[in-house]
Amino acid sequence: MDFVETTLNSKKIFTGKILSLRVDEVKLPNGNISKREIVEHPGAVAIVAINENMEVLMVKQYRKPTESTLLEIPAGKLEKGETADICAQRELMEEVGFRALDMKFLAKFYTTPGFSNELLYLFLGQKLEKKSKKADDDENIQVEKIPFLEAVKMAYDGKFLDAKTIIGLTLAYHQIKEKI
Amino acid sequence: MDFVETTLNSKKIFTGKILSLRVDEVKLPNGNISKREIVEHPGAVAIVAINENMEVLMVKQYRKPTESTLLEIPAGKLEKGETADICAQRELMEEVGFRALDMKFLAKFYTTPGFSNELLYLFLGQKLEKKSKKADDDENIQVEKIPFLEAVKMAYDGKFLDAKTIIGLTLAYHQIKEKI
Repeated sequence: MDFVETTLNSKKIFTGKILSLRVDEVKLPNGNISKREIVEHPGAVAIVAINENMEVLMVKQYRKPTESTLLEIPAGKLEKGETADICAQRELMEEVGFRALDMKFLAKFYTTPGFSNELLYLFLGQKLEKKSKKADDDENIQVEKIPFLEAVKMAYDGKFLDAKTIIGLTLAYHQIKEKI
Repeated sequence: MDFVETTLNSKKIFTGKILSLRVDEVKLPNGNISKREIVEHPGAVAIVAINENMEVLMVKQYRKPTESTLLEIPAGKLEKGETADICAQRELMEEVGFRALDMKFLAKFYTTPGFSNELLYLFLGQKLEKKSKKADDDENIQVEKIPFLEAVKMAYDGKFLDAKTIIGLTLAYHQIKEKI
């Protein structure tokens, strides 16, 4: 079965600082014509950072789109030309002030494949080394430490409202549960 | 600590069929002014539908934003005025042709709180009852049945490229693992 949607034309609507928007007119496999509203995103990383006390380092920040303050694992956008693992160390440093001597790739996934090309690379960071805290100018973030197993339970129980945080905690737990 | 970002002004950029885009100028708690690019979305549901053979019903479809064919759990947008559980039954019917006599809410989460307000409601559907297949006109989707435990292993191993599918499978497994 051929699923491919062929682009007939593409119209750029908006080019912003973190995302762009375009509308593609596409021809479906059955010959019908449709439109696709597509948010272009550079991709991102997120890190489950666990310290020597088996606590996970999380960040509390206001998320304007949701008009609420959310508790999430550290994350951020890929800069131009930056690899995911370099980005993961940079974001971990910027958001919580640590470097992970042991940084392991866990998974990658599209956050919302229905309307965006954002691909998120998820990492498990361990053997954390304290660096000086330097938060982004534009962000008001507060670091919180939560016992890892408690956070995992919260993720399974639907207590976190952020998708990447749920995936990060559950996949990290699956990865290291034999060792803890 | 007060995190709230106050909206100074809001500019609508685009109003589409599945999403809208606006740019808010905001005042941060520290007094700085910044901009937030926000994708408005009506919200969505996704369903982990497990049949009497312990297979999970998934859909394969082309996702134009990713220019690839993805295997996902059934999902779809909330229609105006529709509750999440009504939407879950409708989408399950439209995408895989089944109704779930046992439909249980698992969790809700923001898919990308950094740039969108999309809130996704996740359900576990069991005791499936076959209805006539009626796929959306606009979608070319193919239903696939995968043994549930195999799909869960794939999710933990990072084999699925769709965030809601990973969350759905891992949370559903956590929910019913004592019974299987």
